[in-house]
Amino acid sequence: MREFDLLAHVYRSNVDLPADVAIPPGDDMGAIRLGGQTLLVTVDQLADGVHVDLATASLEQVARKAVTRNLSDVAAMAARPVGAVVAVSLPRDFGDTRATELFDSMRRTAAAFDCPLVGGDIAMWDHPLLISVTVFAEPGEVEPVLRSGAQPGDGIYVTGRLGGSNETLPDHYTHHLDFMPRITLARELAGDAATRPSSMIDLSDGLARDLKHLCDAGNLDADLTIADLPLSDGAHQAARRTNEPAWQHALGDGEDYELLFTAPRSPRIETADVPITRIGTMRPCAGATPAILLHLPDGATCKLADLPSLGWEHHA
Amino acid sequence: MREFDLLAHVYRSNVDLPADVAIPPGDDMGAIRLGGQTLLVTVDQLADGVHVDLATASLEQVARKAVTRNLSDVAAMAARPVGAVVAVSLPRDFGDTRATELFDSMRRTAAAFDCPLVGGDIAMWDHPLLISVTVFAEPGEVEPVLRSGAQPGDGIYVTGRLGGSNETLPDHYTHHLDFMPRITLARELAGDAATRPSSMIDLSDGLARDLKHLCDAGNLDADLTIADLPLSDGAHQAARRTNEPAWQHALGDGEDYELLFTAPRSPRIETADVPITRIGTMRPCAGATPAILLHLPDGATCKLADLPSLGWEHHA
Repeated sequence: MREFDLLAHVYRSNVDLPADVAIPPGDDMGAIRLGGQTLLVTVDQLADGVHVDLATASLEQVARKAVTRNLSDVAAMAARPVGAVVAVSLPRDFGDTRATELFDSMRRTAAAFDCPLVGGDIAMWDHPLLISVTVFAEPGEVEPVLRSGAQPGDGIYVTGRLGGSNETLPDHYTHHLDFMPRITLARELAGDAATRPSSMIDLSDGLARDLKHLCDAGNLDADLTIADLPLSDGAHQAARRTNEPAWQHALGDGEDYELLFTAPRSPRIETADVPITRIGTMRPCAGATPAILLHLPDGATCKLADLPSLGWEHHA
Repeated sequence: MREFDLLAHVYRSNVDLPADVAIPPGDDMGAIRLGGQTLLVTVDQLADGVHVDLATASLEQVARKAVTRNLSDVAAMAARPVGAVVAVSLPRDFGDTRATELFDSMRRTAAAFDCPLVGGDIAMWDHPLLISVTVFAEPGEVEPVLRSGAQPGDGIYVTGRLGGSNETLPDHYTHHLDFMPRITLARELAGDAATRPSSMIDLSDGLARDLKHLCDAGNLDADLTIADLPLSDGAHQAARRTNEPAWQHALGDGEDYELLFTAPRSPRIETADVPITRIGTMRPCAGATPAILLHLPDGATCKLADLPSLGWEHHA
């Protein structure tokens, strides 16, 4: 069973979910009502050998990613982080110095996003490092943007450039470790009626899969113009390595941690130092279930579902 | 480095902790201010082979303990749970049916304590099951009870009976799996000025260690009357198995998940169906650092620090 199916089952079973659960489970963050406040919550795990590799990544990169993966979920809802707790299972031979460095790096990364580390749990065991980070956030003055809400005719946009997040570039930049959660940009977009997204998600499972989540949540089809996909240096490097077109990496690779959103108007943000690119349009659902239509660079069109597997499986 | 030392280091490093962090880290739950509300948060891990053993415990017991361990921390602060998120790393061969059963059991356990499961993360890997649960809570109308706050002369009290939590009793009851978090009782005690504890903690590391936490937090010594310790059936069974006195199990064994608290007055709760026992008295700190003095059943006294090791190491 895929993660999504299992979590969907659990959430469907939540028939006894009280009325003060503000956002139905299944979005980028869960939500509960606390007094008059909405509290948004997200949790993610980072396992050595699955999401990171301690043999090649630095401790600081591992610590950073453990925190930033969650902050990307916060960005996906245009929320503001307020705090974090971490649970860490350390291999027994990890050593005090490295354990301290790991925790210090997590604390510093979280603090840099105004997200103080306020609690934790540490255990030792005979297996690989596993870090679980829970981040909680608040809407502040910005209403959360959900996965549902797209309308037919809305443009489809992404921030940054996509693909090849696993590639280590000549300057040692490795996107899946070194990416920047788009919290500031998301709140700028969502806080202004002129630019507010109608639906939003962060790109963790790959553009194709994550766009499908927006389509499913809004019961809409999507037209995607492949030639318009913004390609990262990593996508080009991956293309040379795999002999697959770079757009295929932009479409299928995961862990971009960029924003994917829909909006009725083109969201020109003059101050944004991150490119925002329109890559398609939402359409009324033509079939029994939402589908994604690809307009390929050679002029042909095909359904995403008819493409041979994009190959990339989410790390876990 | 022990968990406590490492977390203490991290928290000390939190010099940039904003003013809206309401309770200093290091108590049973972390706390932040969210709007006008206090949000309490706790996280705990449950690993197969460390905190539970899937070879002997049922999936339902494992799921239950993953949630109730956290709820015991909520009880320790006399707080009210409002929601939970879980992160689970499953062995690759765990199977869909068992995964579903695990999540359903966690959801049901949480729901039974009015603590809806509002989010989660699932990963697969080639190592044992590891569950990390984060629980959020609010004070409601009851001011949280901290580890600090005990005064000289305060009585020392415990709920329930202590020791031998790992023993499986003839009726198959195994306390460390089947215990009941004392949320209702804690809120009854703390919500009434006549019975309100001056300091409180839940017994996870064993009475001796956890009482030391209260002593350290209040800079006080403690006098403990060993003959007054309420002994569980598990303590007696462990005593027969190990040939050590049962009180030693009540003093040293961990995972009682009962409340340990101090109070200026005897907290008679007529409605409580859980025994509350006075086991000692807080004293002014006589030495350079807080110490625990044991009044042994044979009339002798000795410092806890002079006892040979109590043997029991916390699972992790």
